[in-house]
Amino acid sequence: MNAEIIAVGSELLTPYRLDTNSLFLTAELNSVGIRVVHKAVVGDDPDEMHSSFAHALDRADLVVSCGGLGPTDDDRTRQTVADLLGRKLHCDEAILEKIRERFRRFARAMPEINARQALVIDGATVLPNPKGTAPGQWIEAKGHIIVLLPGVPHELHALMEVEVKPRLARLGIRERLFTRDLRISGLFESDVEQRVSPLYAAYPETETTILATARGIELHPRIWSDDPQKAEKMLDQIVNQMALALGENLVSTHGEYIEEIVARLLTENHATIAVAESCTGGLLAERITNYPGSSAYFLGGVVCYSNELKTSLVGVPAEMIAAKGAVSPEVATALADGIRKRTGATIGVGITGIAGPNGGTPEKPVGLVHIGIADERSARERKFQFPGDRERIRNFAALNALDMVRRHFLFAAPPGRS
Amino acid sequence: MNAEIIAVGSELLTPYRLDTNSLFLTAELNSVGIRVVHKAVVGDDPDEMHSSFAHALDRADLVVSCGGLGPTDDDRTRQTVADLLGRKLHCDEAILEKIRERFRRFARAMPEINARQALVIDGATVLPNPKGTAPGQWIEAKGHIIVLLPGVPHELHALMEVEVKPRLARLGIRERLFTRDLRISGLFESDVEQRVSPLYAAYPETETTILATARGIELHPRIWSDDPQKAEKMLDQIVNQMALALGENLVSTHGEYIEEIVARLLTENHATIAVAESCTGGLLAERITNYPGSSAYFLGGVVCYSNELKTSLVGVPAEMIAAKGAVSPEVATALADGIRKRTGATIGVGITGIAGPNGGTPEKPVGLVHIGIADERSARERKFQFPGDRERIRNFAALNALDMVRRHFLFAAPPGRS
Repeated sequence: MNAEIIAVGSELLTPYRLDTNSLFLTAELNSVGIRVVHKAVVGDDPDEMHSSFAHALDRADLVVSCGGLGPTDDDRTRQTVADLLGRKLHCDEAILEKIRERFRRFARAMPEINARQALVIDGATVLPNPKGTAPGQWIEAKGHIIVLLPGVPHELHALMEVEVKPRLARLGIRERLFTRDLRISGLFESDVEQRVSPLYAAYPETETTILATARGIELHPRIWSDDPQKAEKMLDQIVNQMALALGENLVSTHGEYIEEIVARLLTENHATIAVAESCTGGLLAERITNYPGSSAYFLGGVVCYSNELKTSLVGVPAEMIAAKGAVSPEVATALADGIRKRTGATIGVGITGIAGPNGGTPEKPVGLVHIGIADERSARERKFQFPGDRERIRNFAALNALDMVRRHFLFAAPPGRS
Repeated sequence: MNAEIIAVGSELLTPYRLDTNSLFLTAELNSVGIRVVHKAVVGDDPDEMHSSFAHALDRADLVVSCGGLGPTDDDRTRQTVADLLGRKLHCDEAILEKIRERFRRFARAMPEINARQALVIDGATVLPNPKGTAPGQWIEAKGHIIVLLPGVPHELHALMEVEVKPRLARLGIRERLFTRDLRISGLFESDVEQRVSPLYAAYPETETTILATARGIELHPRIWSDDPQKAEKMLDQIVNQMALALGENLVSTHGEYIEEIVARLLTENHATIAVAESCTGGLLAERITNYPGSSAYFLGGVVCYSNELKTSLVGVPAEMIAAKGAVSPEVATALADGIRKRTGATIGVGITGIAGPNGGTPEKPVGLVHIGIADERSARERKFQFPGDRERIRNFAALNALDMVRRHFLFAAPPGRS
């Protein structure tokens, strides 16, 4: 079964706003075996809306729209679809009463304009909206299903979950989408592409999306099938091949972020962590603590932009900074070891570098970052040269620091650790 | 002149990837007076592609596509448009030589498959691609303009800038889009909506988009006009009215982020800043230092998750934590004053709260955050109760801390400051 998603709203045709609802809707439709073959974004112009819905009905079995169900003149989804199907709108007294009741609950009188939200296309099934005033509508016509949903995300999510998905599940579609979610660190997107793309030809039934985000590279191999066992087996095979190609850079195969992996490794090893950051300015601490429960293993961090603070808060010798420079392997290591000692953490991480856009020199260009890691036995350091602007450089640095902690436990841990 | 944007790529029909190119294209088209009335996303299925382009030509004067110009079997944009117009493709020897040359420069032989990228639709103008192998194509047919561009963002940007925009500018469209970019802090989206929406009726020619981002609320009033003076005057008027309605919550009217405003205020006042964060875990330091040049006024920060570090690194008395709790007005103030003293900064900021999902109690629920601010004369504190999940709570806390610094200089600064 094929679907088209239509997002309605003039603000979605500005340079500011993306239709993000369609990602949610795609995931939900995929989960009940429906493929999305087309997406459209349209404003509130009646002719444009008519054209969008008409063309969608030409090519898709299922048309799901979101938006345009509000109470104003600009909310034209109901009227557009009614016109297109040659049907009338009628006022549904039960919905009208529910809308009035909702306003009463918030101690307000219902503005007359909101009565428009009780208009229902003749023959439509009303999908009650538990989170707002505009109900959804389910229409079967000309061999197609048309579902009208509101654009407000939490209303859309509730309606999809409670009303739409159960109805779609009853259509008895046997095909399903099977998928994996691989997370990768320590490689650029093009490196990942180069390593795994030779596999695509060997698994022609599988499609793979590669995605570069601020939190790392993701690979999503997927396959449509009505045979779960066969599909899972094939995904296992391609994931195994990808794991071989990616080696130690593969962080997880079921969508865990590197923060979660680091959290698990720290917890399993009864270890704690503290960080001293210069060029990342708090980003590494932010990433670690964005994960709930991080207070169990994250003791704290210091953001030491100035040389004075590197010395006073973390104990980096002023002479070392003077001799080697603030951006140096020695200072990275001293930051890592210093914050570990000051906080009593098992692991200390230190980052120093040049995020730019200014401050680079021929010897120490923008993008140069040294990352140190220390435990009670030893401290070591890696040098990186990252591409991109300030934000990308800081992101790469935080990600690679997390990756060094991961590798510390998985690949480089000496015998005898607790 | 009306345009439709078609984004081509099967990965854009997965739950993972959004078509972000269309935001860039919309801004560029708007800047030369062209309105975007429709956007479509389509995969690499030949029938679906044919349908997308055919319908776009039905309704738009200009059709801009991005993607589907690669060298593989799945890259079908050229063939689709040629078929639709009843034209043939021919191999352009000059392009082919450029592609070969590009491979030679990277010391590689051109794979035979890449010859496909030299195929040009009969009658098309070739738009040379300075950043990649696939050139763009500009086709005039049946009273329409069709522009085919690659989907790789930096190639798309270069081609749009150098080849497409100058050609569109020569069409002599007199109408232009005029716009403002207001940034707001200290209010939720619904508050902003409630304050400014009564203005919409008074300025019916103006459309306003409201946008809630992790970095605050944005308002974008805009107007299409062929009379720049009149348009700017009307925008000035509505912005003045919005400023009245928003009061001290208005951060800027020309798109500056609150970090930039805080940077300017600190610089103008020859002041420096340091922060001590608990629940935001480094996010405030990260926000401040994400702005280039921040090393001039940001001295450093401490992320003190544990009570011990609040005492040892920032000097919060252990008895105070024991008596009042780590999440308390007293500790927020002590963090602000403590980090100020430890670092010698002009301004200290302290944040303590419960970001959740766990750790809340009936007296101190998830979302409770105390933010302290101190200078050498005094320290004060504000209590917030933020809605949402961990990420939203941390975001609100960092934003409101920045806002307290802004207000400190603009509205609450005692006389005699430097």
